[in-house]
Amino acid sequence: MTVLFDKVCLIGIGLIGSSLSHAMRAGKLAGRIDVYDHDAEARTVTVELGLADQVHDNVAGAVMDADLVILCVPAGAVADLAPEIAKSLKTGAILSDVGSVKQAVVRDLGPHVPDKVHFIPGHPIAGTEYSGPRAGFADLFKGRWCILTPLPGTDPKAIERLQLLWEKMGSQVELMEPGHHDQVLAITSHLPHLIAYTIVGTATGLEETTQREVIKFSASGFRDFTRIAASDPIMWRDVFLNNREAVLEMLGRFTEDLTALQRAIRWGEGEKLQEWFTRTRAIRRSIIDAKQA
Amino acid sequence: MTVLFDKVCLIGIGLIGSSLSHAMRAGKLAGRIDVYDHDAEARTVTVELGLADQVHDNVAGAVMDADLVILCVPAGAVADLAPEIAKSLKTGAILSDVGSVKQAVVRDLGPHVPDKVHFIPGHPIAGTEYSGPRAGFADLFKGRWCILTPLPGTDPKAIERLQLLWEKMGSQVELMEPGHHDQVLAITSHLPHLIAYTIVGTATGLEETTQREVIKFSASGFRDFTRIAASDPIMWRDVFLNNREAVLEMLGRFTEDLTALQRAIRWGEGEKLQEWFTRTRAIRRSIIDAKQA
Repeated sequence: MTVLFDKVCLIGIGLIGSSLSHAMRAGKLAGRIDVYDHDAEARTVTVELGLADQVHDNVAGAVMDADLVILCVPAGAVADLAPEIAKSLKTGAILSDVGSVKQAVVRDLGPHVPDKVHFIPGHPIAGTEYSGPRAGFADLFKGRWCILTPLPGTDPKAIERLQLLWEKMGSQVELMEPGHHDQVLAITSHLPHLIAYTIVGTATGLEETTQREVIKFSASGFRDFTRIAASDPIMWRDVFLNNREAVLEMLGRFTEDLTALQRAIRWGEGEKLQEWFTRTRAIRRSIIDAKQA
Repeated sequence: MTVLFDKVCLIGIGLIGSSLSHAMRAGKLAGRIDVYDHDAEARTVTVELGLADQVHDNVAGAVMDADLVILCVPAGAVADLAPEIAKSLKTGAILSDVGSVKQAVVRDLGPHVPDKVHFIPGHPIAGTEYSGPRAGFADLFKGRWCILTPLPGTDPKAIERLQLLWEKMGSQVELMEPGHHDQVLAITSHLPHLIAYTIVGTATGLEETTQREVIKFSASGFRDFTRIAASDPIMWRDVFLNNREAVLEMLGRFTEDLTALQRAIRWGEGEKLQEWFTRTRAIRRSIIDAKQA
């Protein structure tokens, strides 16, 4: 394999940051990897697991001379880091991120990006319900999509370089407009997470005997929701706060549909239910055909 | 292994019925297996796969002389079958079922059961998103719970015999009152299915370009819902129609919680969101500890 970037700087070393380190090490894609994290414990784990050539408690120092800087922090942490990062960026560097919301990072980071730095927001559609620097692994991105949302006018060569990095880590890359990304993800990811968090929370509000039975008999459907609802709370808080409009729009549609089904149950409208449940089967078939199952 | 029942009659040969046949054959638990199904195609598949010693298109004939009769049909089909089954039941036979709602079967089948027949409703917490007689396999019940909901006064020896059958097929058996069963399953199974059906349906209502992207990027959470929403439409229609009260009650609680989170998103109440998302993580931990993950 060829080194694609002499110095890569990862800002934040949670599940995604640590997986990036593992994947770039495995593919010998980076000459060196520098890591910044604001959390002392995360920095200690980074050293322990050899995730970085150098670990920094100062973001400007970490960014210095890097050819590629990737933010791997919750959406809410970007605004505070932006000025610090911006002032140390090298001319010609690529600046990217891995966040689940793309308009927010354009809003919070975009205005700080110096000329001659290539700002290319990104979002790997990959994750697990585990978080933190110990949760990462080299294969996380293999067979997954990575969406890049460059703004108009971005140097195509820079996009190609970043795209190649993701491809070398096993991903397929798709380019998308940031606003459209946020809409698509609102229905495929943000709303499912919100609903899973809700129902698991609803279950914790039941009387204690029932709660024990909910856990015991969770294999009947509930279990799948608990896996999703175990995802990182801070990351997800920031997703909802930063993709508010698209999430509320999709939530509105969902609630209308749920109310219609609720009414069908109350009034015993079997045909309506059956028709709806038959239609949803077809979409599962499409997902299997698209090899995403 | 010992034969536990000389003649077993399975009424309905979908995913659960065919899995019962495979499991009883594998464990040599039944002297012979007779199958009734109202659907000619299902009967043909039953012969083709050797799921029965004899296949019947007449339910009374299938039930005749059976030591154990298990209904494996959607909840809505029980009422029509009940008088036919009842008139042919042998003295001392055990009559059970595998439905997801237990008060409804007590209501629809109970009054028809002759004296000296042991009526023991049952519900194996096992399934896949596939349906029909080709979907069954011998290990479906292995490591799964099976809930039995006998009425007060049922012969304990009959319960023990049925319990032993489920244990030999790899299940752990739990006894429960029918109404309590319906409440627990409303939250662990029926509501999750309703919500999954809803959101997958909501996605099919989006414009076509977005729909294609929903399928493409489904790995980000949506996919888990589509698996659930691919379950048998008729079976699930009947579940909702027959466990209406408990489902509507749980749905009411869910909607209240969802509205509270929606409000927190709209007003940017990050702490409320984070607190909720942290609490739901704990329940996942309990499920892993209970070895149900």
